[in-house]
Parts: sequence; structure tokens; C-alpha cells
Amino acid sequence: MNYRLIAFVLGEIALIMGAILCIPMFMALGFHENHTLAAYGIAIGVCVLLGGIGLALRPPKDKRDLRPSSGFAICGMLWIVIALIGALPYCISGYIPNYADALFETVSGFTTTGASILSDVEALPKSLLFWRALTQWLGGMGVLVLAIAILPHNDKMSTALAKAEIPGPQFGKLVSKLRFTSRILYAIYIVMTLVLIGILCACKMPVFDSFCHAFSTASTGGFSVKNASIAAYNSVSIEVVITIFMVLFSVNFNIYFMIIIGHFFKAIRSEELICMFIIFFVAVAAITVDLCTRHTFGSVGEALRYSSFNVASVMSTTGFGTADFTGWSTISQMMLLGIMCIGGSAGSTAGGMKVSRFIILSKSSLINLRKTLSPRSVYSLKIDGKPVGEDTVVNVQNFFVLYVLIIIVSTLLISIPSAKMEGNMFETNFTAVISCFNNIGPGLGAVGPAGNYGGYSVFSKLILSMDMLLGRLEILPILLMFSFKSWKRV
Amino acid sequence: MNYRLIAFVLGEIALIMGAILCIPMFMALGFHENHTLAAYGIAIGVCVLLGGIGLALRPPKDKRDLRPSSGFAICGMLWIVIALIGALPYCISGYIPNYADALFETVSGFTTTGASILSDVEALPKSLLFWRALTQWLGGMGVLVLAIAILPHNDKMSTALAKAEIPGPQFGKLVSKLRFTSRILYAIYIVMTLVLIGILCACKMPVFDSFCHAFSTASTGGFSVKNASIAAYNSVSIEVVITIFMVLFSVNFNIYFMIIIGHFFKAIRSEELICMFIIFFVAVAAITVDLCTRHTFGSVGEALRYSSFNVASVMSTTGFGTADFTGWSTISQMMLLGIMCIGGSAGSTAGGMKVSRFIILSKSSLINLRKTLSPRSVYSLKIDGKPVGEDTVVNVQNFFVLYVLIIIVSTLLISIPSAKMEGNMFETNFTAVISCFNNIGPGLGAVGPAGNYGGYSVFSKLILSMDMLLGRLEILPILLMFSFKSWKRV
Repeated sequence: MNYRLIAFVLGEIALIMGAILCIPMFMALGFHENHTLAAYGIAIGVCVLLGGIGLALRPPKDKRDLRPSSGFAICGMLWIVIALIGALPYCISGYIPNYADALFETVSGFTTTGASILSDVEALPKSLLFWRALTQWLGGMGVLVLAIAILPHNDKMSTALAKAEIPGPQFGKLVSKLRFTSRILYAIYIVMTLVLIGILCACKMPVFDSFCHAFSTASTGGFSVKNASIAAYNSVSIEVVITIFMVLFSVNFNIYFMIIIGHFFKAIRSEELICMFIIFFVAVAAITVDLCTRHTFGSVGEALRYSSFNVASVMSTTGFGTADFTGWSTISQMMLLGIMCIGGSAGSTAGGMKVSRFIILSKSSLINLRKTLSPRSVYSLKIDGKPVGEDTVVNVQNFFVLYVLIIIVSTLLISIPSAKMEGNMFETNFTAVISCFNNIGPGLGAVGPAGNYGGYSVFSKLILSMDMLLGRLEILPILLMFSFKSWKRV
Repeated sequence: MNYRLIAFVLGEIALIMGAILCIPMFMALGFHENHTLAAYGIAIGVCVLLGGIGLALRPPKDKRDLRPSSGFAICGMLWIVIALIGALPYCISGYIPNYADALFETVSGFTTTGASILSDVEALPKSLLFWRALTQWLGGMGVLVLAIAILPHNDKMSTALAKAEIPGPQFGKLVSKLRFTSRILYAIYIVMTLVLIGILCACKMPVFDSFCHAFSTASTGGFSVKNASIAAYNSVSIEVVITIFMVLFSVNFNIYFMIIIGHFFKAIRSEELICMFIIFFVAVAAITVDLCTRHTFGSVGEALRYSSFNVASVMSTTGFGTADFTGWSTISQMMLLGIMCIGGSAGSTAGGMKVSRFIILSKSSLINLRKTLSPRSVYSLKIDGKPVGEDTVVNVQNFFVLYVLIIIVSTLLISIPSAKMEGNMFETNFTAVISCFNNIGPGLGAVGPAGNYGGYSVFSKLILSMDMLLGRLEILPILLMFSFKSWKRV
């Protein structure tokens, strides 16, 4: 492994982080939140220091090749460094004095989980709230993808990093150069976010809130600037807009690119897109019927309003709340939990296992059943009419095994220390892990939409933070980070 | 598909069932439980009728070939018929008047689950208690395996049926003829059961109770003749004996065969055996430490006594109770739940996913991680030094996908109707499915060792019964039963 290269990449990322941290600092100046200025200053100082060291160690141009496996490990490490830096403002400003808590909040932001340890977010100054929303927006499309878009790296190295950060079972460039692919992705992301900000302002949401909520929605993060989340505005129009955009941001960004270059009909015939919409509408219908049968809300309209918002929030792994679904029937809660695990599309900002993996798993199971019936027939797994390689199928199946294993082991681990929480700890711990690992935010029980993660011990918070990273980077980067072989020289 | 052949096999099985039903009938005569005689009589009558029809439809000798896939479907169907017949005595005698309840109890017996809807088992007459225990003993080694051992079928047809009924990822005959393999398996089973009966009697358990509990232990079923299960005897020696035998019956019977034919050292080097014992001892140690730390029991000895019995009970998927572990700490309960899912060894009477599948899944995940690091290297998955075929690995991974899917879907389904139960329904429903599907018996929450399944609706009971069958026959036979193609003529 080329340690100078790692230091160099790390330095670059630190400088980008430092530059971005100037935004909340200027906001603090503008909003006269002078008591927070030092916090940003120190954080930026750390970034500049790391950046300086990195640039000083810069390797010669011909020694900047990265093995794909090292890309995974470096990606994992970079994300941890980013989170460690991002937590500084919360901690130094004293608003989240405990560094473990600040780290949890930052990891939750960058991984677009949206799980919080804060019981009163409205107590935070505006610049910190903005930083909290901004971490999500950066994490949504990816910090390394941003670096690739703006820095002049060679394509091989960029691909190694991008493969690790962009979610989904298969990696495909939109255009031949990865740098341009990243720019296109960010351009779509920025335009859609701006459109959302405009619409939210038009719906009479305050401008500052619109920015923060647009960042949360675009990244499918879920942090709000209000304690009551989106419910605070009690506005049907805002809820409808956010519902639609949560779903839009769970769509594979390749689809938007195809639409832009004129392949509209090919784009909307995507199996993953259709499957995602089927899951969405079936879940909304089922939960609406359930809510109506049990008279949870006053009218069918109300039931539809709350079910569609919450299904979109959970499927897109955003985690905004308009209702405390821990009070809904067991079956509705279970359905929401199931949708959490499937998540959004590959190549979107949404988390979860991803719809395309769900399709591959279902199809390969069906093919296996058919093979048992006629052992000599040959079947091949196709998506959008194209055969999916045996390697991809095996990778997805292994991903699933690791996915389940991580949920089980994490649930065990966070159950070891006692937590300061009420209610059934089996439900709370199990759904806390599912929620963090799938980057949603709220779970069931004590970590439901009305609760928070503040009651957990430091150890449990660290495990849950690790789960969020495992979920956002889709397991491998974090696991390979711990493998000696990843860091070995070729 | 050869319908006359199906009818013939069905008839044979019905006659065997009728013959076995004579045992509780004679017991009823002996114990003067005359009010139950009619129930057995009618059940035997149904068996004779089905048997007569089957034999009348007997196909000519050269038309008795069975495709392997049809073997699966027929196996699934036969098990359902056996359960339907086996439920008759409970229902007709009036002790379990509701047929759905009686069916649940019977399926629970044959699948060696041991989940009960009865809150007072001591109210049953002795002959019915014996029938309840006997269903487990038959289901443990397999009803079709018994049929193969005693009936003169051709080997191809026997193999098709045995493959479907004997649990585990790989099917291997002990000797070249399957009929002799079945006889060896049953011989080992009978001898070990008799030894256990002898030891239990020596430990001063009443003779009748010894028979019933030996049947439950040998089959890893878990039905007891006492409301308080094994705790009723409050005897350390009985608990130690049953703990040891629960573990012994979770061992692959091939191991015993190898020991009998003199390959002792080769037998005990089996990876599955070693892995199972590691899981057992680690779990016992961890739970003992946890129980001691939280002072759940008075002394370390007590903690060890209860943890070893309950880990053995849960790992072997027996489900006997000596303590209500729903009162233990969350982490101990979670560990028990994890062990439930892994279960015992392939080719034993234990349920669960099986240790060998767990090994294959873990190894293939590790290999996949290594492949990510060095894509050009070649790795092969080995167990006991022998390479495992790519087909087996894919089958195990698909099994796992279906396994998780069935747990999720079943939990959703049983959550639809409301249940007459106290406490957290998420925990109860989820663990009820895990417990039934892995053929254990008790779960957590309201279906814990001190509770029962009586509060569930008829619909939920049917779903849980289906889960028990899916678990016992390892998914495929039940799923393929519903496939039109399974029943098609070649």
C-alpha cells in the first residue's frame, strides 16, 4: 500500500471539508452567533493542518495507482476521518458536549441516517442546524464523489474510490470519464435540491427551514430543524411536496440522466423503478386500509395523508415524521420495518438493502426453486432484459448474509450495556439497529419518531455509528478496512 | 405425475399411521380411559379407509419411478395428511375440541416443535399424552424414513422421498441401499432412546413420564407431561441427563454410524460437530456470566445449571423449560434467539437452520471478502477437508434468503388478526415465528416458556403450523407442493 498516496488523498479531503466548514462559519457571523465561531475556527484549523501534511507528502504523478480493494479500505477510513472532523463544531461549541454523542450525530448526518441523540433540536443555533443539514446533503451523493468531481485525479484511482462510495450491486459510469460522471450526478442533485427549496418557500416554509429540509430530503437524511419534524408546519401542501421529493430522490440517478439525454421511455421501463413504485403503492394502500379499519385517524383522507408520507419517509430511508407510528397497529409497524430494510434504488441517495438487490435475491431464489424441479434446464437471471453476471448474484447473496449477520451481532452488542430507556428493549434494540444500519433514523419502541437515541450508552452509540457507516458504504469498505491485507504493499 | 403412485404411497403411510395409532388405543384400554377409545377407533378407521383406497390403486411394479422434484412435493403433501390424521384423536375425544387447535398441536408434535396451545397439559388422559409424545418421536427421525425402512420400495423412489425429509444441505447415504441406511438410522435412534428411558427411570422419574420425556428429548421436540415441564421434578440429575441427551440428539447421526464402524477419531474431527460444541460452550459461558453479573440466580452453580439446560434446550431446538428466560436480561434472551436460528447439526433430529449451513454461509462470505481483496485468486470452500460443490453453496445461500423471507412474511401475516395476549406484540409475534419455524417451541414475550400459543387466532395458528412444516422439511417440499409443475406428468 502506498501510504503517501493515502495521506495525500486524506489531505485533499480534509481541505475540502475545511472549505465547506466555512459556510456555517460565515452563517454564524451573519446570524451573530459569535459564541460558535471558535468551534468552526478550530475545526477548520484541523482541516488545514491535515491538508498541509497530506500535500507535503504528495507522491509523484506516476505513483498514484490504487488497487480496487485498497479503494474500499481507504473509502472506509476517509469516512471515519470526515466524521471525526465534522463532530468538532458540535463538541467545541458545547451544544453537544460529549464527543461520542457529537460523533453519533455527525455520522448520522453524513450517512443520511437522521438518528439523533438530541431531545431539543430547536435549542441549537442556526449555523449548527445548517451544518447538521449540510452533512447530510454531502453524505447523500458522497463526499468522495464530490472530491472526484472537483479534483484532477486519474480515472483508475477515482473509480476505485467511487465504486466503494456509490451504493448498489453494480457500478456503472454514465460517461466514459468518471470525473464527468461525478459532475453530472452532482449537477442533477444540485438542480433537484434547488427546485425543492423553491417549492418549499412557495409553500410558505421559512427560507432557512426550506434550505435545511431540502438538504434533508435530497439526501434522504431526515434531520429537521423542528422538534416535531415536518409535523410542526401542519401543512398538507408541504407534506405532499416532501412526500413526492422523498420518492424522487430514491430513484436511481441514472434514470434522470437517461431522461436528460432523451431516452425517456427506456428510462421509465426500468425494472427497479417499477418495482419500487409497486412496493410504495402497495404499502400505502395496505397501511391506509389498516389505519382506516382500526380508526387510527378520523377520516380516510387523513389515513392516506399519514400513510403515504410515512411510507415514503421510510422507503426512501429519510425518516421525517408527521405521526408517531409506534402507536399504529403491529401489522402496520411491521410493514414499515420491512420497507425500511428494502430501502430505495441503487445509485440514489436512499439507504437500505436497495430494491435492485431485493429483485436479484427474489429472482435467484425463484430460479433455484425451478432448478430443483427441472435440474437439467438452464436459467439465467435477467434485469431490464440483460443477463446479470453469476458474480453479481453471488455478491448480492453474500451481501445479504453479511447484512443479516450484522443486524444480529449489532443487536446483541447494543444489548450488553443497560440503556436509560422505557419499554420493551427487544423491540427497541432490534429496530434501532435496523434503522441505523439502513440509514433511516427512527425505529420502533423507545427510538420511534417521538423518541431519540440519547438514552443509549457510549458503547451502544459507537456500535450504532458503525452500523450507520456499514449501511451507507454497503458493508465492504468498513469490513475491509480491518483487513491487514487491504493495507499491504502490492 | 403418476397419481396412482401418489395414492399408493399415501395409502401405505396411512396404514402405518393406523398401526401406530393402535399403541395409544391399547394404552387407553390399559389405563381404563374408555371415553377416548372411540377417538382412536375413528382415526384408525380413517387410516384403514385411506390405506384401502391406496392399495386398490397400486400401480404396476415398473411404474413406480419418482422424479426427485416430485419426491419433494409428495413429501410435503404426506406430512400434511399425517398431521390431519394425527389431530383426530385430540379433537374427537373432546380434549382439544377446536380442530385448528388440534392440528396446531399435532403439527407441533410431528415437526418436533413442541409449541402448545394447552395451558394445562396435565388435564389430558395418559393415552393422549403418550400419543402427543409419540408424534414427536416419529417426526424426529421422519415418518417417511420409517416407511422406507419397513416397506419394500425401490431405491430411486425411496431416495426421492428421503432427500426431502432428512434435514441438511447435503444428502448422503450411510450404506449403498437406502432401506438399510434408514434401518441403521432408526436402530441408533431406538437404542439411544431406550438408554435415555433407562437412565431417566434410574433418576427416579416415573416410568410413564420417562417414556414421554425420552421421546421428547430424542426427537428434540419438547412436549412435557407436566405443566412446569422438566422444572416439575426439581432434580439436578434429571436436568443433567436431559441436557446431555439433548446435545447428543443434535449431533449428526452419521457421526454415530462412523463411531460404530470404528472411525472414532475421524468422526470427532467433524467440523460441524466441533463448531456446534463451540457454540454450545461459548453460549453457556456467556449467559452464565451475564446471569451472575445481574444476580438473576443465587449462586454461580445455579446460574450454570439453568444456563446450560436452557442453551442445550434451545440449540437442540427441544424447547424444554426449567426457567422462564423471558425474565432474563435482554442480551441473554437475544443470544438464546440467535442460537435458536442456528439450531443443531444436519442429519440429526434437531431443527433450525443447521450448523453446517451456518458454516457454509460464514465460509462463503469470508471467501467473498477475500475475493474482493484479490480478485484473481481462486478459493474453494471446504468442509472436513473436502471441497463443497458450488451448487451446494448456491443452494444454501438461496435457502438462507427464503429462510429470512419466510420469517418476515409469517411475522407480517400473524400480526394481521388481533391476538388475545398481553405484552409487546412485536416481540411475541416475531419470536413466535422464529420459534415455530425453527421447531423449538417457546419464544419470548407472551409465548415464552411460561406462556402458550392459545391466544392466537385460528388464522395465525394455521400460519404458524405451516411455518413448523416449512422448518421441519426445510422449506422446499412445502413450497414445491404449491407449484403446478411438481404435479405435471413427465
